[in-house]
Parts: sequence; C-alpha cells; structure tokens
Amino acid sequence: MIYLDNGATSYPKPSAVISATLNACKRFSFNSGRGGYSASVKTAEKIYSVREKIGDMFDYEPQNIAFTLNCTSALNMAIKGSVKTGDHVIISSLEHNSVWRVVNSLQDDGIIEYDIADFSFDEDETVNNFARLIKSNTSLIVCMAASNVFGVAFPIAKIGALAKQLGIRFVVDAAQAAGVISVSGVRDNIDILCAPGHKCLYGNMGTGFIAVREGVYLNTIVEGGTGSESVNPKQPDFLPDRLEAGTLNNCGILSLGAGIDYINSVGMNNIYRHELRITDCLYSGLSRNENVQLYCPRPQWKKSAPLISFNYKDYSSEKTAAELAEHNIAVRAGLHCSPLAHKFFNTLDRGTVRLSPSAFTTFRECEIFLNTLKKI
Amino acid sequence: MIYLDNGATSYPKPSAVISATLNACKRFSFNSGRGGYSASVKTAEKIYSVREKIGDMFDYEPQNIAFTLNCTSALNMAIKGSVKTGDHVIISSLEHNSVWRVVNSLQDDGIIEYDIADFSFDEDETVNNFARLIKSNTSLIVCMAASNVFGVAFPIAKIGALAKQLGIRFVVDAAQAAGVISVSGVRDNIDILCAPGHKCLYGNMGTGFIAVREGVYLNTIVEGGTGSESVNPKQPDFLPDRLEAGTLNNCGILSLGAGIDYINSVGMNNIYRHELRITDCLYSGLSRNENVQLYCPRPQWKKSAPLISFNYKDYSSEKTAAELAEHNIAVRAGLHCSPLAHKFFNTLDRGTVRLSPSAFTTFRECEIFLNTLKKI
Repeated sequence: MIYLDNGATSYPKPSAVISATLNACKRFSFNSGRGGYSASVKTAEKIYSVREKIGDMFDYEPQNIAFTLNCTSALNMAIKGSVKTGDHVIISSLEHNSVWRVVNSLQDDGIIEYDIADFSFDEDETVNNFARLIKSNTSLIVCMAASNVFGVAFPIAKIGALAKQLGIRFVVDAAQAAGVISVSGVRDNIDILCAPGHKCLYGNMGTGFIAVREGVYLNTIVEGGTGSESVNPKQPDFLPDRLEAGTLNNCGILSLGAGIDYINSVGMNNIYRHELRITDCLYSGLSRNENVQLYCPRPQWKKSAPLISFNYKDYSSEKTAAELAEHNIAVRAGLHCSPLAHKFFNTLDRGTVRLSPSAFTTFRECEIFLNTLKKI
Repeated sequence: MIYLDNGATSYPKPSAVISATLNACKRFSFNSGRGGYSASVKTAEKIYSVREKIGDMFDYEPQNIAFTLNCTSALNMAIKGSVKTGDHVIISSLEHNSVWRVVNSLQDDGIIEYDIADFSFDEDETVNNFARLIKSNTSLIVCMAASNVFGVAFPIAKIGALAKQLGIRFVVDAAQAAGVISVSGVRDNIDILCAPGHKCLYGNMGTGFIAVREGVYLNTIVEGGTGSESVNPKQPDFLPDRLEAGTLNNCGILSLGAGIDYINSVGMNNIYRHELRITDCLYSGLSRNENVQLYCPRPQWKKSAPLISFNYKDYSSEKTAAELAEHNIAVRAGLHCSPLAHKFFNTLDRGTVRLSPSAFTTFRECEIFLNTLKKI
C-alpha cells in the first residue's frame, strides 16, 4: 500500500514506537499516581518523562501537560474550560469540526457568540482579519496552526502577539503542525496548545494532549478520580490532575514518548524538509496534469504543513480516492471534517482529495501515485 | 511481584491481548469511518466487531456502544448528557469520585440537586433507600454495580426495575463488575452502562465504553469530527458518532476485543468463581489474623465483586501497603478515589488496604501475602 493519509493518522509508526507500546503493555501497565508499589512508581516516572519530552518540544512546564484521548478532546477542554456566559470567541475560517462544532454548541446553548476570521495568504491581512473582529467581550481566539485540508499555515506567532497585547486567551490546534513545524508556547504566546499524538508525533492512535501555560485557569468538562485530594468534592486545582480524570492510556502515552524521541533523533526540521520535498514533488506532478485542479500555491517552508488537496477531472473526490484505492493507494477524500475550510476555498460541493506524506513516504511512491492518477 | 491491585487495572493481560495490541499497531492503525481504502475499511470492521462483542456481553445494540478514554469519561458523558436545569439526581452512598465529583460540579453550577441513597446489606432496604429519595423532578439514578473499595454489590436489577417503573433514567457504573458479574442492559433495565476496558475486561489502559439503550437521548459534552454529516454544525444525532468525536484508540479497542474473547473462552462465571475463591482465601486468612480489621462480611457469589478492604494493626493503610511493597506485593491503599464509601464505612481517617485478584492470581500468591502480612 502507498499510504498518503498521514494527515488522518501516521502510518507506519517508527519501530521504536511499536517496541515502546509492547514494553508499556508488559511493564508499565499500572496505575500511575495511585499505587505506592515499585511498578506503579516506575510507571509514573515513565509517564512523567513523556510530559517532559512534550514540554521540551513545545515550551511548556511538564506538569502542565495533560494527556487526552485525542486532539478533539483537548480542544473541547480548552475551549469550554475557558469561556463564561456572555463571552465572544473568534475562530479562523479554516477550523476543523473539533473547533467549529464546539463553538457552535456553546452558541446554541446561549453561552457565547462567535465570529469567523478569514484566512489570507498575506499574513498581516490574516492577523488584521482577527483584529477587526475583536469586541470588548472577546475572551478567546482559537486558531489552527495549519489547515488539515489545504496545508496552509497561520501566522500563529503574530496572532499570539495580538492576543497577548489585548489580554485575550489564545488556543492553538496544532493537529497538523505538532512534530513538523515548530510551535512554541513561549515564543508564540500560546496560552493553550492542543495536539494529537498519533499524527506527526508518531504515537499510537488514542493519544493527544493539552498544554497549558502557567497561570492559565481552566474549568473542567470532565471530573473524576485523580488519586489526589480524594476527599475534595471538586476536581483539584493543579495540573495535570485537574484535566486528567480516571485512568490514562499508558501504552499510548509511552508510544508517544518514543515517537517524540524518533523526531528528536532525526530532527524535526529534517523530517519537515523531507515531507515538504515530497509534497513539492506531488504538487509539481499534479500541476503538470491538465486534469488536476489545485487550490493553493506551491507549499512553502514554514508557510505550509506538508499536505495538499486537489480534484481530478469532473470526478467526485470520493470517486478519485476509490479509483486510487483500487490501485492500493490510500488517500482521503471528502470534507475532512472541515466544512468551513471547503466553504472558504469553494470546494464544499465535491470536497477534495488530500495527499499527506510522512517521514516514511518515498519519492518512488510519489512517482507511482502520479503515474497511477494519469490512468484513472 | 505479587499483584493484588487488579481493581486499579488488571495485570498481567492475557497473551492474546498483547498480541492483539501489537497486531492493531501494525495492521489496524488507520482511521476507521474516514477513509475508503481497504486498510481503513478493514480497520472499521475490526472496531465494529468489538462493539458486537460488548453488545453481546451486556445486551446492547453494537452501534450503541461508544468507545471512551476510560470509565470516568463515559460516566461524565452519561450524567452530564442526561440532566437539564432543575433536575434532581440520586446516587448511592458508595459512589466513586467519577460520579460524586460530577454531580457535585453540576450542583455547584446550579444545574441539579442530588441526594445520596445509603447502601444496605439488605437488598430491599437499599432499593427502599433510593425509592424514599425520589422527588417529582428526579430524572436520574446513578449507581455502581459494586463498590471499588469494599466489593459489596448493589441490587442493580431491582434498582433498575424501580427506575423503569417511575420513568427515571438509570445509569450504572460497572467498573468493578463488567467482566466478572453478569450485567445486562435488558434484564437489569440499565439505560446507560459505563465500564472501563482495562480492569476485569482485560483490555489495555486507556479504554472504556458507554453503552446506551435504543431511544435514550444524550446531550454531548464533547463535539468534533466524526467523519459523518461533516457539514452539520452539530454533533450527529446517531450513535456511536454522537459520542465519538475525533480519533479512536484503535490499539486499545482491539486489545479490549481480545480481552473479551479471553473471558468468553474461559467463561465469565469460571473467572468470577476463581477470583471469589481467592478472595475467600484472603478473607479467611485475614479473619484469623488478630491484627487485621475487616469491614464487610465474607464475599458472596453475586453479592460481591472479588475484592476486599482491610486495615492492619494501628498502621495507616499507606504504611501497610508500603511494607507489603517492600516484599514485592502490590496492593493499593488510601481512599481509592471514593471518600463517600469510606465515610459510609467509617474509614475516612485512615483509608483501607485493598486486595483485588484477577483470573491470574494463584492460591500460592494468596498464601505468600498472608504469611508476609504477619511479619510486618
């Protein structure tokens, strides 16, 4: 199989990730922070080491990293935990349903109102699009680091600076950036960073995290046992316990640790460079195919996540993907859970076919894909 | 290590569970329900087969089983998704913080009021304790199948019958029962069943589920991408998508499927019988030790989950556990995230030491534990 659906979840995983999973199942499947016996304590240390790896990569304190089921879960915690009745929220025009459905639900419940700031290929214009929408009751800006459909990156640091200047909380969905494009809580002024563990960070599915800057307070959407302050009828105030109720996904978390080790050993920029070259190769080949419609300029360093969207002939995106699947090429078609992005790029009617490589994608696979496409 | 902390998470896992995890990492780590390519479709089929296994075991429709991070997450979805402003809720006097903190948070937010129904060793009295608290605005009863601290089981079927008769929604936390004591959505009239996958069901940590009876509607606490109805700004109305936003923990879910297969191959009653005999052996030995304080009668078939709590000499429960840990015996001490239960049994000051065997615990281990205890 030629796998070009790493935007959904990366495959294959580095061998060290598989080993870490197996090792975790066999040696570290104990409840950390609950037991005083050696196996539980060692497990807690291993889990904490992954908080440290994440903290190091994204510039957060390790204890302020809470593990979640996925990025969606983290975004729900971040957004719902930040707003109060009467607040105004701004999101970007390319947000995934993991943000759009959340703010929509809050608006339906009469808690917030929200506006949508348009993306622009001009960074300053994008920032201005956010700035123009700010009201006296704007308490939160939520923006993705890069689009999961079109790959275009947002000027996160500039939006972060704007938010900081005005005292507005800034939440970033780094689903398609974490692990390829550098994202920093400190440098980019990101109050809360949400990311999946199973995409560009190479951990297993079922992993994600929410990273919170020191002093940023969140209400909880899930309460339960934390192994701490057990007589307290409320969720503890301190992180990570405040955001981690119940048993963690140890095997997943330790696999994520191995995924981050893999990235650090190869070098994030090296991986990103490779993937961007692959994306560039795909883009070039598609550009030369007169039956292909592309929607964005050629992917650029730090301006794009390594993924592109296209359509072919007059086929529905699903038809193109199905034909490719017949040739054992895995791509994703449709709306990619991001109707806002498709509305913005006028592709809501047919969706797009998305190509998203990983560190393991080869130029040979790229070539096979391009040649196969010509035949369908 | 002699591991007697299976109430926290079961260890070791059956070898088939480890194999299923590895197989899932290598072959089924694709986004089910999002891609049209073969690997994604096959993954979706495998995930669905686990819904079927759970459905068969607990009498729910497979599509009404949604996978969660853990039982806590499932309970939050069940409770918060069921109530509206002005509702009255009843919980038992032994509930875990995964229920108590949730209803407490809802009460603090002015949404509900709740009362606590006392457990009794007389089943009918327990049912009457719930019945007495019912008001005209009681919309929900939440009860555990068995206590995670003292092992005592609730007469779930009788409480379910009461709830059904009065049209009150009934949520059951089967954390310590699912996989050992038969629980049936149909027979026991359980509208929503929540359970972890990593305890008596032998799946990996990071797994749990919420099972919902046909026609029971839930508001959502998490919204996001579902790969379905993507243009809909709201979470889809149908299950499991309504309760499954974002990427699932495939490796965990397929490990849970293997765990259930293991239980079915050995026989749930056979496992329960073995564990209850182990518990009985522990109970007998502890009863003969004059330095031991026990809090409940001898565990009985279908009246007890296979776990017991005790204290030793005038030691804090943590001290006893620490001494046992020195001898490589893993038990859990403290409040077990269940202050209500300790309040009820008057153990809030020192907590208890909990012993919880699994299918893999041997009588030899039991004997070693009992002899070791005498020496500390």
